[in-house]
Amino acid sequence: MEKLLIGGGWQVSDNPGGSFRAEDPATGQPIGPEFPVSGAADVEFALTHAEAAAKDLAAIEPERIAGFLDAFASGIEASAPELAEVAHRETALGVHPRLYDVELPRTVNQLRQAAAAARSRLWSAPTIDTQAGLRARYAPLSKPVVVFGPNNFPFAFNAVSGGDCAAALAAGNPVIAKCHPAHPQTCRQLAKIAQAAVQSAGLPMATIQILYHMPPELGLKLVSDSRVGAVGFTGSRAGGLALKRAADEVGIPVYAEMSSINPVFILSGALAERGAEIASELATSCLAGVGQFCTNPGFVVIPRGGAGDTFVSVARRCFEQAEPGVLLARGVLEGLVRSVDALRTAGARVLCGGHAASGAGYRYSPTLLSVDADHFAEHAAALQQEAFGPVSLFIRTGSDAETESIARALEGNLTGCVYSARDGSDDVLAERLMKQLRPRVGRLLNDRMPTGVAVSAAMNHGGPYPATSHSGFTSVGFPAAIRRFATLECYDHVREAWLPPELRDRNPDGGLQRCIDGVWTTADVAASTP
Amino acid sequence: MEKLLIGGGWQVSDNPGGSFRAEDPATGQPIGPEFPVSGAADVEFALTHAEAAAKDLAAIEPERIAGFLDAFASGIEASAPELAEVAHRETALGVHPRLYDVELPRTVNQLRQAAAAARSRLWSAPTIDTQAGLRARYAPLSKPVVVFGPNNFPFAFNAVSGGDCAAALAAGNPVIAKCHPAHPQTCRQLAKIAQAAVQSAGLPMATIQILYHMPPELGLKLVSDSRVGAVGFTGSRAGGLALKRAADEVGIPVYAEMSSINPVFILSGALAERGAEIASELATSCLAGVGQFCTNPGFVVIPRGGAGDTFVSVARRCFEQAEPGVLLARGVLEGLVRSVDALRTAGARVLCGGHAASGAGYRYSPTLLSVDADHFAEHAAALQQEAFGPVSLFIRTGSDAETESIARALEGNLTGCVYSARDGSDDVLAERLMKQLRPRVGRLLNDRMPTGVAVSAAMNHGGPYPATSHSGFTSVGFPAAIRRFATLECYDHVREAWLPPELRDRNPDGGLQRCIDGVWTTADVAASTP
Repeated sequence: MEKLLIGGGWQVSDNPGGSFRAEDPATGQPIGPEFPVSGAADVEFALTHAEAAAKDLAAIEPERIAGFLDAFASGIEASAPELAEVAHRETALGVHPRLYDVELPRTVNQLRQAAAAARSRLWSAPTIDTQAGLRARYAPLSKPVVVFGPNNFPFAFNAVSGGDCAAALAAGNPVIAKCHPAHPQTCRQLAKIAQAAVQSAGLPMATIQILYHMPPELGLKLVSDSRVGAVGFTGSRAGGLALKRAADEVGIPVYAEMSSINPVFILSGALAERGAEIASELATSCLAGVGQFCTNPGFVVIPRGGAGDTFVSVARRCFEQAEPGVLLARGVLEGLVRSVDALRTAGARVLCGGHAASGAGYRYSPTLLSVDADHFAEHAAALQQEAFGPVSLFIRTGSDAETESIARALEGNLTGCVYSARDGSDDVLAERLMKQLRPRVGRLLNDRMPTGVAVSAAMNHGGPYPATSHSGFTSVGFPAAIRRFATLECYDHVREAWLPPELRDRNPDGGLQRCIDGVWTTADVAASTP
Repeated sequence: MEKLLIGGGWQVSDNPGGSFRAEDPATGQPIGPEFPVSGAADVEFALTHAEAAAKDLAAIEPERIAGFLDAFASGIEASAPELAEVAHRETALGVHPRLYDVELPRTVNQLRQAAAAARSRLWSAPTIDTQAGLRARYAPLSKPVVVFGPNNFPFAFNAVSGGDCAAALAAGNPVIAKCHPAHPQTCRQLAKIAQAAVQSAGLPMATIQILYHMPPELGLKLVSDSRVGAVGFTGSRAGGLALKRAADEVGIPVYAEMSSINPVFILSGALAERGAEIASELATSCLAGVGQFCTNPGFVVIPRGGAGDTFVSVARRCFEQAEPGVLLARGVLEGLVRSVDALRTAGARVLCGGHAASGAGYRYSPTLLSVDADHFAEHAAALQQEAFGPVSLFIRTGSDAETESIARALEGNLTGCVYSARDGSDDVLAERLMKQLRPRVGRLLNDRMPTGVAVSAAMNHGGPYPATSHSGFTSVGFPAAIRRFATLECYDHVREAWLPPELRDRNPDGGLQRCIDGVWTTADVAASTP
């Protein structure tokens, strides 16, 4: 049985709730060693050590945390070929380009951006009111953050190496990583690299702890433990809402990034101008990663009539010609079968695919469905259910008013997109649509598919409920993502010597931007006004 | 029956759930006219109009919202004598200095600060990544905010004129104000002034709506209606948690500022140096407003021994000599009787007071209780229950270790304070204590009582659960308080013409501070990079 990284070292699971193995989704066969399903004793052990580590970490200078994040990034780079190989076996995602050339560099870059953010401290937004004698900043929670990783990004959103973990650490909080049980070997490899970096940076040994699997009810117990400061989650709506409900009861914030259908509106001018080009762009975006992205464009609004029909046939040809890719896990296949059945039951017609694909392992044929706008209007809730995988639903509209009414019926999404003609002929409708879409999506796009999520200070990988649990926060992009794992601290006439460095008269490194009396500046505070 | 301000005008309550009148707490007699207890029809009417107003308001330029807030502030100033008089009759708070000279100017100042914050747009924190083509800002919710006002500040925290309402409006959201039923006439007067300002500024007529009272279950229905964007609440823990539970279920954020005992630690050096002075300062802070402040110092830690005993007797003399003030309402008196009984049952000894006071109306004698630290250790939860009113509990400690262990046992509070000697003799303990207090309080003070809450950008009137529902937010101070009522919006390659002014290449007013490629600046974006 594999060991757990808890309490600062690799420990045998105490009283495990059984064991599990990874599966190769390309064959459906178990692979690799046995991993423990943790029981209450493992969770208690991790919490005890995380609580102690949190107090130590909160007092550590940002440079050491940044050093850890950089060392972790370099460690991942140094093991890139092995990591890509093990993740490929567990997820069936391609080594090239996906894992090795795209996701892994993105993960490394994200950790380095987190290091830079920790170093710059801009996330702490030091605010000083010299007249009132008040100084405030965002600070570590002084409690651990529990991170739940999803199945679809074994590196970039992994509970150990992904954005939530990086953001929690950049704020100075330890992490209890609840990995996704679909790729335990990948998690173990990442945890080994993380632990080496923890040691070399001299951070508390329990800065990162890892639990591979646990019964759902134990997960609820974990997130509602008063020693926990906050929870980051990426995954299904049902899972996220269950965790949120448990933690809400005791005032622990859960930042859950859940489901989204990512509506795309293609207007008639754009269709006439470059319909085939957009159809091919759509197919590429829908089928990348076998459609298993949170920003997969699953809901595409297209006018009825000839140009729309041509668009649909081009897209359909792309979908039909694509090989059914291997899905991440058995659960994804089962979910897809259920979701597509539900869309059919709600009145959507299958244009192509619509069934599990033959061949070894877990495969589903690339699938397009279609429904008329007037039918959508009557079944708007059922037809907005996400089908996680290579599935998109076309909504065909007969008028601008109908197109706009679809936007009005949408629930919260991560993204929303409008394709309009370059010659301006769609501008009136485009503007009206964007007014409707804006409060319903986290990221609004023009003329591009939503699947790329850049790690940027101006990114919002978030959106209105139920796409996420809180529309004021993003899970990608520094410094904003760090704010989820921070608390607001005010110092009222506290003596200079007892202030944190960010709030002392002297700028801590000469370059920290602080808001002093309403102005962002790198200046020192003129005179000591406690 | 008085009318409601809903749907943009003064309306007769539809199907009211009965009626109520204010009481003069100095006599216990009903005063003023009958006000409606709203039923579901009023709430539905208000929500329908608020939803429409939200869409309009989100598109209105900040200058008009600022103009409204300034006009509202001036309107309150112009009616100051009448407002102070009516509030005095309903709350028994003194006209001079409390209502007229302190709270009213503070309220006016707060509205003007909100106007300045709306005008400056700094709260929207525009963030531009020119390389990635991404631009983000905080934006109005495009949905109404429901604000629940408390009983203890008829102006500064009133659902119509207080900080939550000002913050929600500054962000560009309409407000449904659920006033506190203890001062309906004050609320009506404020709502009249607000509505005149709404008209003169040309805002949507339903920008502010007011409901005087409703059955608790209807309040839960209101805050869990999907048309609501967020909820601001100031009041009791039970009330706040009930609203939070209902809204959490449907992903609506509730910012509840609830109970706090505001621990004050007085160290032995400070006691020796200036014990009598601090005791008198404490009594003043405890008895101001008849102790009915959320930041009332209700929990005071003092060493055992002679200097501590002297401190206690000075404080006790102040409490005994103070006239029992009139409480805000019958409910406050009933709550106090229950709370002091509970503290006694948990082992606290009454030093003075401890009973309702004779005389007309609702009065409770200024009360001090005391308990030893070792007893506190065994009953820490029961002895941390807030007694809302002129009541404080002394905890007597025999050693530095015992003093520190008390700090470690504290739950979340709004404030925490350490008084230490000016000669440095307390510094070692003071520093250890502040390390313990820091993650347990929103605002940490040195050598001053917590009852003053300045309206400042560096204020935090918030704190860890259960003092509030989320430790990352404050209910006082701009721009931070506005962020509670904002959503994060990202624009991904959206055309310049369709960006909000804050995110266009050109700085909208030449003076807005924006974070462009990591640097806060008032510069324009160099070249158009969508």
